[in-house]
Amino acid sequence: MSVSRVFLDASGSAPMSRRAIDALQAGIADGWADPARIHAESRKARALVDGAREAIAEILDARPELVHFTTSPHHAFERLVGGMYKARRGFEGIAVSAVERDAAVYAAAFAAPHAVDVLPVNEYGHVDLDALQSTVAGGHTALALVQHANQEIGTIQYNDDVYAITHAAGVPLIVDATASIGHIPAPGSWDALVAHPADWGGPGGIGVLALRAHTRWLPAWPEGDDWAPGGVNVPLALASAVALQERADTHADNADRLSGYIDRIRAAVAQYEGVAVVGDPVQRLPHVLTFAFLYLDGEPLLSRLDRAGIAVGSGSACKTNSLEPSRVMEAIGALTHGNVRLGLHPGVTEADIDRFLEILPGIIADVRGDMGAHP
Amino acid sequence: MSVSRVFLDASGSAPMSRRAIDALQAGIADGWADPARIHAESRKARALVDGAREAIAEILDARPELVHFTTSPHHAFERLVGGMYKARRGFEGIAVSAVERDAAVYAAAFAAPHAVDVLPVNEYGHVDLDALQSTVAGGHTALALVQHANQEIGTIQYNDDVYAITHAAGVPLIVDATASIGHIPAPGSWDALVAHPADWGGPGGIGVLALRAHTRWLPAWPEGDDWAPGGVNVPLALASAVALQERADTHADNADRLSGYIDRIRAAVAQYEGVAVVGDPVQRLPHVLTFAFLYLDGEPLLSRLDRAGIAVGSGSACKTNSLEPSRVMEAIGALTHGNVRLGLHPGVTEADIDRFLEILPGIIADVRGDMGAHP
Repeated sequence: MSVSRVFLDASGSAPMSRRAIDALQAGIADGWADPARIHAESRKARALVDGAREAIAEILDARPELVHFTTSPHHAFERLVGGMYKARRGFEGIAVSAVERDAAVYAAAFAAPHAVDVLPVNEYGHVDLDALQSTVAGGHTALALVQHANQEIGTIQYNDDVYAITHAAGVPLIVDATASIGHIPAPGSWDALVAHPADWGGPGGIGVLALRAHTRWLPAWPEGDDWAPGGVNVPLALASAVALQERADTHADNADRLSGYIDRIRAAVAQYEGVAVVGDPVQRLPHVLTFAFLYLDGEPLLSRLDRAGIAVGSGSACKTNSLEPSRVMEAIGALTHGNVRLGLHPGVTEADIDRFLEILPGIIADVRGDMGAHP
Repeated sequence: MSVSRVFLDASGSAPMSRRAIDALQAGIADGWADPARIHAESRKARALVDGAREAIAEILDARPELVHFTTSPHHAFERLVGGMYKARRGFEGIAVSAVERDAAVYAAAFAAPHAVDVLPVNEYGHVDLDALQSTVAGGHTALALVQHANQEIGTIQYNDDVYAITHAAGVPLIVDATASIGHIPAPGSWDALVAHPADWGGPGGIGVLALRAHTRWLPAWPEGDDWAPGGVNVPLALASAVALQERADTHADNADRLSGYIDRIRAAVAQYEGVAVVGDPVQRLPHVLTFAFLYLDGEPLLSRLDRAGIAVGSGSACKTNSLEPSRVMEAIGALTHGNVRLGLHPGVTEADIDRFLEILPGIIADVRGDMGAHP
């Protein structure tokens, strides 16, 4: 990244830190062999994976042998939802909050094509606990998926309250922590959890899942208990663990600083005409913010910001081709034309925020001028 | 790898070359962003992936836009078999040769649980073309899977002859080239193809698939046309392409040299008592060899070799826990107790082979002595 650019789109990807890159290189040197074979080269690779698993398990407060690497968070959802659903024979429904990420919803729809119960959320994106309660009380729910925090609007769910309800009903809870781990302390209440190294400054192309000892699952695929058929890349696993340790060491400092930046941006953009700032202003991720333009397309805004040297995300997703209104925004009742999503990585400075807030009003005015759309 | 060790287990994993490591590092510096977003950082990452795809496509003689990265070859088989099967509604069977790899067989069994037709092979592992012919003539075959070359015994299938049969019957052919690409020229006859970067000295944690323009598939999963849901790791894609280019540049030289080593080993071990050397001695991969002991367990042999500084594979698989007789060995009618599989990477020298052949007879004698099992 050129020093002159400001990167404010660190949700699901961020520049790796020096320590993480060093770990990746050490992994390439010492962990290139297939960790599943029996000779010394493989044992060395296996030891690195085991060490990475232990380091991550400690931060998740999970048992190392129940922490697994997958080839992506998407794949983690596929295997987890498929495997846990299969173990709950006799129960057909899967309850998912309306703000779960696509990968979680897809996995649920694949496992239970006609039995996905979507749970409404309030204006901040908190899942409706009464709806959860009445759904799981119905006796047909095999699994529930309620995320830890939302990747678009930043809202942190009341994880303990959610779990109290699912646990009392005997329904296993899968918690999507792909947007939160590495930014805030791990959630405490889950039967299975998914996390995403690239979101915490680790490498892409790898996912993490964790199970509790009591959590039952059956292999949906004949590979058996292998969560990453074909194997994981050992250097990626090692770099993931080192990046997470580094984040955990600096959680509190970064969270305070980045949260302050987000507060500043929230306050500033709330003053603009036709802009809605969404998500829980308090119970939220420290580094994520989405604001929505009622009468303005997102794409020209993002492109102009990009040309001005500032990278931001579109609220809706990870896709160049999905500038359609976001499902999350619809779920919270935000009527929106275009969104800007910010994700601040620890390298973002006060000066970056100054520059963004200095440049933004002019760019909005330009886009409005181009559109002739100022109402 | 310590210089004093001899690594002869390069099937599915091998030390990466300097050029491939450099490419990985360049990818970390310039390709850390999510390639699917719209700002400059993402476009840079996307350009690297596109370049990698083009480089690989050229070597596969495929169209770049029909070459896709996946998170592993296993995942490539899952998506390909599932998606192509779904597009062949009205046809229920999947024909697989008896020597396909587990990932291919699993994918077939998952898509068509009760309709997998296993095609016999001859003593060298060549698929029975008459059996293929009569199976696809039956009119119920949705897909056929016949590999390019076998990862255990090295036998190269008569790919053009196989394709002539499937194509005439209108049955799409998926060719597993995970053991051959990077070692010999790519097969010419396929409707879909799977390849494995880690097998050609690229990184682990990534797979490659290619389709022909006429090949039909439907998304088995709701993600649509995304072959790697969650995205691929850009540095891995880049390093995969560079490693393959390097291999392609040196194909002929390496193949001749390594094939000579294999011939030497074949001739030497064929002299031992109670040893069967398997696979086609001529139409074979240049770098792979399996030999089987009729009255000797594989595990103590592998362990003793390892302690003596030589890493070899077990014939049966990639797994520490699968020393049971190999399915491939059973299919070719090799009655076997323990196997040794060799995979030679380009860094292997004549001196390494000298050392292996010098040490092997003594180790066999020791294991026989321990077992008291010399018949």
